[in-house]
Amino acid sequence: MTKKYDGFMPEWEHTAPPEKSFRSIFKWGSPTEYKSPNERLYKVMKDTFGLTDDYFKKKQEEGLKTVDVEVPIQLSQEQIETFSSIVGQEHIKKDTYTRLKVSYGNTMIDLMRLRKGIIEHLPDVVLYPSNKTQIEAIVRYCSQEKIPIYCKSGGSTVTRGMEAVKGGVSLDLAVNFNKVIAFNEKNQTITVESGMQGPELERVLNGAPELLGASKPYTCGHFPQSFEYSGVGGWVVTRGAGQNSSYYGKIEDIVICQEYATPVGVIKTEEYPAMATGPSIDQIMMGSEGAFGVLTHVTLKVFRYMPENRIRFSYIFPSWENAQAAAKEITQGEFGMPSVFRLSDPEETSLMLKLYNVEGTKLGSIISKRGYKPMERCLFLGFTDGEKGFCKNMKKKLHRICKKYGAMYLTGYPTKEWEKGRFKDPYMRDALGDFGVIIDTMECSVTWDTMPEVHQGLREYCKARPETICLTHMSHVYPQGANLYFIIIARMEMEEYLDYQAGILDNYIKYGAAISHHHGVGKSFGPWLEHDLGANGYSIIKTLKEHFDPDNIMNPGGTLGLDVEKRELKFK
Amino acid sequence: MTKKYDGFMPEWEHTAPPEKSFRSIFKWGSPTEYKSPNERLYKVMKDTFGLTDDYFKKKQEEGLKTVDVEVPIQLSQEQIETFSSIVGQEHIKKDTYTRLKVSYGNTMIDLMRLRKGIIEHLPDVVLYPSNKTQIEAIVRYCSQEKIPIYCKSGGSTVTRGMEAVKGGVSLDLAVNFNKVIAFNEKNQTITVESGMQGPELERVLNGAPELLGASKPYTCGHFPQSFEYSGVGGWVVTRGAGQNSSYYGKIEDIVICQEYATPVGVIKTEEYPAMATGPSIDQIMMGSEGAFGVLTHVTLKVFRYMPENRIRFSYIFPSWENAQAAAKEITQGEFGMPSVFRLSDPEETSLMLKLYNVEGTKLGSIISKRGYKPMERCLFLGFTDGEKGFCKNMKKKLHRICKKYGAMYLTGYPTKEWEKGRFKDPYMRDALGDFGVIIDTMECSVTWDTMPEVHQGLREYCKARPETICLTHMSHVYPQGANLYFIIIARMEMEEYLDYQAGILDNYIKYGAAISHHHGVGKSFGPWLEHDLGANGYSIIKTLKEHFDPDNIMNPGGTLGLDVEKRELKFK
Repeated sequence: MTKKYDGFMPEWEHTAPPEKSFRSIFKWGSPTEYKSPNERLYKVMKDTFGLTDDYFKKKQEEGLKTVDVEVPIQLSQEQIETFSSIVGQEHIKKDTYTRLKVSYGNTMIDLMRLRKGIIEHLPDVVLYPSNKTQIEAIVRYCSQEKIPIYCKSGGSTVTRGMEAVKGGVSLDLAVNFNKVIAFNEKNQTITVESGMQGPELERVLNGAPELLGASKPYTCGHFPQSFEYSGVGGWVVTRGAGQNSSYYGKIEDIVICQEYATPVGVIKTEEYPAMATGPSIDQIMMGSEGAFGVLTHVTLKVFRYMPENRIRFSYIFPSWENAQAAAKEITQGEFGMPSVFRLSDPEETSLMLKLYNVEGTKLGSIISKRGYKPMERCLFLGFTDGEKGFCKNMKKKLHRICKKYGAMYLTGYPTKEWEKGRFKDPYMRDALGDFGVIIDTMECSVTWDTMPEVHQGLREYCKARPETICLTHMSHVYPQGANLYFIIIARMEMEEYLDYQAGILDNYIKYGAAISHHHGVGKSFGPWLEHDLGANGYSIIKTLKEHFDPDNIMNPGGTLGLDVEKRELKFK
Repeated sequence: MTKKYDGFMPEWEHTAPPEKSFRSIFKWGSPTEYKSPNERLYKVMKDTFGLTDDYFKKKQEEGLKTVDVEVPIQLSQEQIETFSSIVGQEHIKKDTYTRLKVSYGNTMIDLMRLRKGIIEHLPDVVLYPSNKTQIEAIVRYCSQEKIPIYCKSGGSTVTRGMEAVKGGVSLDLAVNFNKVIAFNEKNQTITVESGMQGPELERVLNGAPELLGASKPYTCGHFPQSFEYSGVGGWVVTRGAGQNSSYYGKIEDIVICQEYATPVGVIKTEEYPAMATGPSIDQIMMGSEGAFGVLTHVTLKVFRYMPENRIRFSYIFPSWENAQAAAKEITQGEFGMPSVFRLSDPEETSLMLKLYNVEGTKLGSIISKRGYKPMERCLFLGFTDGEKGFCKNMKKKLHRICKKYGAMYLTGYPTKEWEKGRFKDPYMRDALGDFGVIIDTMECSVTWDTMPEVHQGLREYCKARPETICLTHMSHVYPQGANLYFIIIARMEMEEYLDYQAGILDNYIKYGAAISHHHGVGKSFGPWLEHDLGANGYSIIKTLKEHFDPDNIMNPGGTLGLDVEKRELKFK
């Protein structure tokens, strides 16, 4: 039993943000839902940052002010009327608050700007199209008038993906462009409008027998951490991955075909399971991040919904080296892949044992007694998906491999604790932010052989800054490697943070990691893309941009680094 | 026991072709290996074609003549000397025989032309580069001089993929550009030169402990029917698939990264397991079929070599409808995929039972007694790959589904019979061709919901021609659908065949199938590609071509339909 904590705790904000306030824009998720650090995380922060309870008695920059500035509109009256006539006059908005809400996402710098009341890069108007014909008309008209177009589906970008740097129009697709277009149970596919939101898609699929007249319930298999507030369009155009991607695949593995409205016309691919018909057009459009056109319809694979087969597991490894070796052996074992696969490095393990309520319990003391040492031991947790016998066999194989590398089985309990918070962690950003503490995530992709060096190199860089918590895990695994996901918790101001983040990207390039495994590139990482792909590789992207969007009206202002200056890397 | 056959059999050719003869070019595989129809297939042919034994007493157009025509070379002396200086003078050839051998592949029209002694579309010289630096130099020089470049790795193209329509140089990569560049056991990847041949790659991987200092043996997992005479370069640039692709994936799933020498410089992708860094450059280059550049190095995933875990199975279904329903349920069952998955339609089943020595045996009579009717019943065979428990679970699940759809288990025997011939069938083309009978294959990709219509529509078209055998199977399956592979056996002359083949492609478009699942597009199917992708989709391919190869020197003359007139479809 954990002893009840009776010391000081900060007054984490548990009030809905004022209407039309800056806070109402940056606050994650539901206005009335919150997540704050438990006493153990709070203590870690105080210790790491060298702070006392006193510091946490006063909140900073809460963003409670109302967004009431008028920002002038550059579009002509005629242009606005044309947009009105396309989408209907009730589906166009011009107020600053709405324009700000669709331009800023969940990038750290968005949150920081909103806390400070900084308003920049607004679209002139926000449109709420209801069908793809309207979107095609908007793209045609914008091409003719050279008006920039930005899109929002869920709005959970962490790369300034939808920021309307050049003004123009923003399409908020989530509002009216969010319907199921077709469900094909025979092919196990669903076609949806790109503004469809994750939870709605999953609700419809889980309820397929009642809602779609299907013989069975289904799942979309795609659950990013932002799931509850993310949209299908964003998943697809950024090449996102869900927390279950090791089993279900990244979104590019799940997409079957797509339709885009581009300045050069409609690009539509067909529903085939596989082809040998030249370069893949689907794989050209995925990753285009709004810079080539607007994704309208997308057809996704769906999977059997069989949560009853799910087997939860967790293990503690004696070291990061052993943990990596086991991860490699599991992914290369050819018995299928676990669905959730989350393996924390020693610093993250230390915190996770606190957050998942293991530390201080009997389980916690057994771990220590058995010789799994703090800042050496690594927590591994996850669960299986798929057919029952397939799951059972996987559990058996996995167990054998973990044992081989000296791991101790910790039951399914820590996994259940993780599940409780799996979509809730973003709420914590708001609680911490009130006290000037940022919590941000940066992830990359590595092979097994470079993983130790990337991990060490990045930790060295990140920890060279004093008073900085740096947690790392792999959460998407492959026979050839995995992602590495870095979580930074520190007190940092905007300018320092941008510089620090740039250093992380520089180091990804330096140590040979791909600069993004599933967050996309957006405008934040754009200047690094040419370094990542090489000049000749990058020139293909520029040619494609020129092909689709000769007037640079599609998500202009830095997306994929297309219209910004190339960055000089620090270490060069 | 089958009764010993004592009737007439044609004198199938069992002599090595004369040196430097046309036959030595078109004869499949080893000069001293043969495969000819058994008496049951022979009888089917006689019956279908309305022929007597007499017809099969005299061979036609055997291509025994020596290739001794001199075909003038268009390149200047200086150009030839430059090529000599790049590759070394012992690595350049100018004789007609060699030039013909690298230009024609295994397309039906190649075989027909060679039997008739038709020589056309020769490269001026054949080069045998030894490393990627030489290939880069060749591409640079050809760009400067506007000399066309063609490539051969294995030469097993069935789409006129390497035909040197515009003259210039052909690079025969198989001869000196066929080495292992790197083996990374930690990442389970191997990097090879693109002229590496299939069997050599597999030999090296199976023998990895001795040959590569590895801890275990590995497999490449890619076994097209042409495996014994196909090369890695061809697999990759055409988006090929092996017979085990349902488990291991198509080649585009197996490739990790690549390097190309193109007229605009080297395109090199990096070894990452997954990324979210814009449009996929790998997926742009795969499928480019030599029209963007020359693939030099390629890094492939490798897999554990565990043939001891393989479980063979075969079943007979009462009908094509039941067979399709079972296939769909298996692929959607989420217990993993069988490695080989081959399901024949009724006409193919009828022939396969003859070829695999089931008909006439006790097993054959049990099938009939149990009510599985000729021209209704469907043969399903295959085997599993992967970890032992994974295979065992799959077998159990598969059995349950087959039973549910009324199938009878036929043991692993027919699968073993199939395995004996799995790479040998192409030899039969030569035996039949001697009597004016062609055997050709055309495949497409369909979803489960369109499969019945595509199958029926194509069969109607194919069988509308009298005296034509049309066999169909699916051999690469996915949760969303499968390929359909049509085998045509008939007496046909070249002109009629080309027209007939065009009709098949027209019908793929008409019934909504992708025109190629794994044979690629090449020059044969090029004129249909724009119909397949749509005008706007196809224009992306044209833009990419212009980007990489503004002077049209890379595999010019129809590849991907890029420099030929668009075809008007018959049914329009």
